[in-house]
Amino acid sequence: MAKDKKQPRPKAITPKGFRDYFGAEVTQRAEMLSKIAAVYHRYGFDALETSAVETVDALGKFLPDVDRPNEGVFAWEEDKDWLALRYDMTAPLARVAAQYRNDLPSPYRRYTMGPVWRNEKPGPGRFRQFYQCDADTVGAASVAADAEICAMLADTLEAVGIERGDYVVRVNNRKVLNGVMEVAGLSGDEKAAERGIVLRAIDKLDRLGVEGVRALLGEGRADDSGDYTKGAGLTPAQADTIVDFVTAGANGLDEGVIDLIEEATDFPGAASNLPDQSLVLKRLNDLVGSSEIGRAGVEELETIANLLSAQGYGSDRIVIDPSVVRGLGYYTGPVYEAELTFEIKDEKGRPRNFGSVAGGGRYDDLVKRFTGQEVPATGVSIGVDRLLAALHAKGRITTDTQGPVIVTVMDRDRMADYQTMVAELRNASIRAEVYLGNPKNFGNQLKYADKRNSPVAIIAGGDEFEAGKVQIKDLYLGAKIAESASADEWKDRPQQFEVSRDEMVTKVRAILNGQADG
Amino acid sequence: MAKDKKQPRPKAITPKGFRDYFGAEVTQRAEMLSKIAAVYHRYGFDALETSAVETVDALGKFLPDVDRPNEGVFAWEEDKDWLALRYDMTAPLARVAAQYRNDLPSPYRRYTMGPVWRNEKPGPGRFRQFYQCDADTVGAASVAADAEICAMLADTLEAVGIERGDYVVRVNNRKVLNGVMEVAGLSGDEKAAERGIVLRAIDKLDRLGVEGVRALLGEGRADDSGDYTKGAGLTPAQADTIVDFVTAGANGLDEGVIDLIEEATDFPGAASNLPDQSLVLKRLNDLVGSSEIGRAGVEELETIANLLSAQGYGSDRIVIDPSVVRGLGYYTGPVYEAELTFEIKDEKGRPRNFGSVAGGGRYDDLVKRFTGQEVPATGVSIGVDRLLAALHAKGRITTDTQGPVIVTVMDRDRMADYQTMVAELRNASIRAEVYLGNPKNFGNQLKYADKRNSPVAIIAGGDEFEAGKVQIKDLYLGAKIAESASADEWKDRPQQFEVSRDEMVTKVRAILNGQADG
Repeated sequence: MAKDKKQPRPKAITPKGFRDYFGAEVTQRAEMLSKIAAVYHRYGFDALETSAVETVDALGKFLPDVDRPNEGVFAWEEDKDWLALRYDMTAPLARVAAQYRNDLPSPYRRYTMGPVWRNEKPGPGRFRQFYQCDADTVGAASVAADAEICAMLADTLEAVGIERGDYVVRVNNRKVLNGVMEVAGLSGDEKAAERGIVLRAIDKLDRLGVEGVRALLGEGRADDSGDYTKGAGLTPAQADTIVDFVTAGANGLDEGVIDLIEEATDFPGAASNLPDQSLVLKRLNDLVGSSEIGRAGVEELETIANLLSAQGYGSDRIVIDPSVVRGLGYYTGPVYEAELTFEIKDEKGRPRNFGSVAGGGRYDDLVKRFTGQEVPATGVSIGVDRLLAALHAKGRITTDTQGPVIVTVMDRDRMADYQTMVAELRNASIRAEVYLGNPKNFGNQLKYADKRNSPVAIIAGGDEFEAGKVQIKDLYLGAKIAESASADEWKDRPQQFEVSRDEMVTKVRAILNGQADG
Repeated sequence: MAKDKKQPRPKAITPKGFRDYFGAEVTQRAEMLSKIAAVYHRYGFDALETSAVETVDALGKFLPDVDRPNEGVFAWEEDKDWLALRYDMTAPLARVAAQYRNDLPSPYRRYTMGPVWRNEKPGPGRFRQFYQCDADTVGAASVAADAEICAMLADTLEAVGIERGDYVVRVNNRKVLNGVMEVAGLSGDEKAAERGIVLRAIDKLDRLGVEGVRALLGEGRADDSGDYTKGAGLTPAQADTIVDFVTAGANGLDEGVIDLIEEATDFPGAASNLPDQSLVLKRLNDLVGSSEIGRAGVEELETIANLLSAQGYGSDRIVIDPSVVRGLGYYTGPVYEAELTFEIKDEKGRPRNFGSVAGGGRYDDLVKRFTGQEVPATGVSIGVDRLLAALHAKGRITTDTQGPVIVTVMDRDRMADYQTMVAELRNASIRAEVYLGNPKNFGNQLKYADKRNSPVAIIAGGDEFEAGKVQIKDLYLGAKIAESASADEWKDRPQQFEVSRDEMVTKVRAILNGQADG
């Protein structure tokens, strides 16, 4: 029993940075996740659900935000152990791959979907709990595993309703970048800080453009607000090498360069499409020069491109794009990103590309933390909330969902009869409910139906019961008539009509099916 | 990058009391939850997903374990607030109902499903994170809301695969119990402790039988291990009143009493079935005597029984049973419980009833904590893991699920060809994958297929490619032949055969469909 006699009342609030999801927000996400799971399953991936809680020890310091490796989790001490909520799905996978290494098949393909938690400063659209939906292959060294995930990512986007042409999966390889760094004289432990700045600078190409990136590669850059970001301090020649690398694909190329590519490739569609993959590979090959790791990286990219093209994934769906670097420090080989290419309006009404909805890559060191043995792994994470937002933006799902049929209560002594009606409707697979509030004020019942977005109300009082009839009120039609200047167009379809009790289910279904059937 | 040079390796372990769920464990639960959600939705309930994290303040001290109201949650301090993982779905609902009271429809019917966390001592089959699946109606004072949830519970059990006759929903009313307590002289604040003991004693009827309960109502009782539980200290007359109440339904009645009931009701099926509801109501009416609250409770039970019988829910599905009290202190009216009535073997091989899989009731005080206003509410919680276990016990779902078709790799230079094969299979909606491990040892590939429980392996090397053929290996058949003493019965259906490349998809599908088609 509540012992709150003298205590102040608790506040009914969601904790800061958290939110509640209602109705369609929940079911639409569930439907989308179920479509994604079906694709993952068809590709041979098995479901895994780890607990939300991990030991802090097992989670490690792998938070994506490389600037604050020690922060970002919700943690507490329990029985002398520090426990924490998982911040992503990759760290728990690494733990599982190590813990069950003798029982799991190898390679182990798994998918997982669920909430993750970040103890970060919340902001607009930035919450402390959000969904991730990941697929990873652990134990496959071959880049065929990376290629497979890129193909699966394309299939997944189409399965949830993003049409071909509205997305592109971009692929790059950290080894190529490492090769380019080597050529630019940025290899070795003592240059780790510079490499970090270079990585983050490239990651901002979308937002800052080539010149912004070049500034960050050199001295640094002040943003519009006047805040100054220190640069990597590269010489102009070093910066040129990096910029050449980043712009070796389509992204970031200006019109003139695209014209040159068209000439070189004899492919007139290139300007409106994307450049020939083999040309990009050739340019990368030139850039890495004699760097061994760089050459290996280019070769891997070539293999990926060939595997994908053999399965029919052309450059309209998956392209090699050196501007993709992905922020995370732990990637060691191929990296990939799915971008939605259609325009939306930003908060100020300006058109901009929707942007990235998924990303991932190869990380060969994560399992090693536990076992000492290197285990090759590659995987992708889909940003569930962003993808849902994209589907909304494309009109693929609407927030307006139909409520239940409401059986109103005119006579509270006949509750059993109303329950019988509603049971009949439900048995006919029609979503329906009896009004369960205080039935005294009938207007409140119709207001409730309106709030629920109910398509139909059933009305029956003493007269109707005596005559074996019910009244059916078409609430959507009522709303349309109320909106319309002239009710003429609706005159053949009455807003409320009487039917015999036996016909109730048939007539309700006719209205739900959109038939003008009185 | 991992900076674990000098640090000891972290242990790859699930935190104590937590566990991981693999493959079918995840998908079967998801399927079951989706069937439950469909029933809830048809009844007009809307989905709600609150965050896993709440303020400790909002959660309150409502932990079901009444003996330890202050313990049981995982909590930590954050920005001077104490936060905790939710321990059930009712406390967050009360918070939501208060927080959004001006925006939500009233009555508000909502369902929710997801994990909850308990900081309790883990035991066999008892974990610190588990699923709950709740449906509640907030703002409906009418017991029609309770009746509706009982009907929905019966529908839900049948929807997930529990057959009619294998379950029963038992309904009782706390008001009747309170009336009986009044008659027995146990009302008033100063008797709260005794009432608590009585409640817990009744809850143990199943386990201890009538004499065990009577002992707990009186002096107390020593269990088999010698542990002594102090009783409520009631006089024999007081205890008789309580025992009469508890045994007023079918549960706990001995054969002789059932015979008497049969005579009284002229209903020969009663002994093998359940007693006439009106007789139970009459006995309860006698027991509560002139107690006002007791009479109100009996009347509510009568209304519930009438509403349910009007919708066709007879005593084969939903019965009034005074032995159901539900442990939680916060219930204020009708309480209900779904029990599975079929027998299973316990850990020692003894037959016993499967028992309870869901329960709930009316709680009118929870929202009041926040707003000061009493808000009537009623709801049910399904124990997802127990229900899944029941479906396994009934053979409704199996743990053995089919793995993907495996395209083996004979020649690693032909990876693009293997990927093309697998893409064809997937495009035909056949779950399939290329072997992505090191292909050098072909035996490992077949071992992998075995571990994945793959039905079919595709094999193609240089010869096959040259001839435009593939080898198809029927792995299930192979397993059957290996088990069988004589291979004669399989002689018409070869375990491995060659088909032309064009026919691959058709032939694989034939095997998956169980056709003996070579």
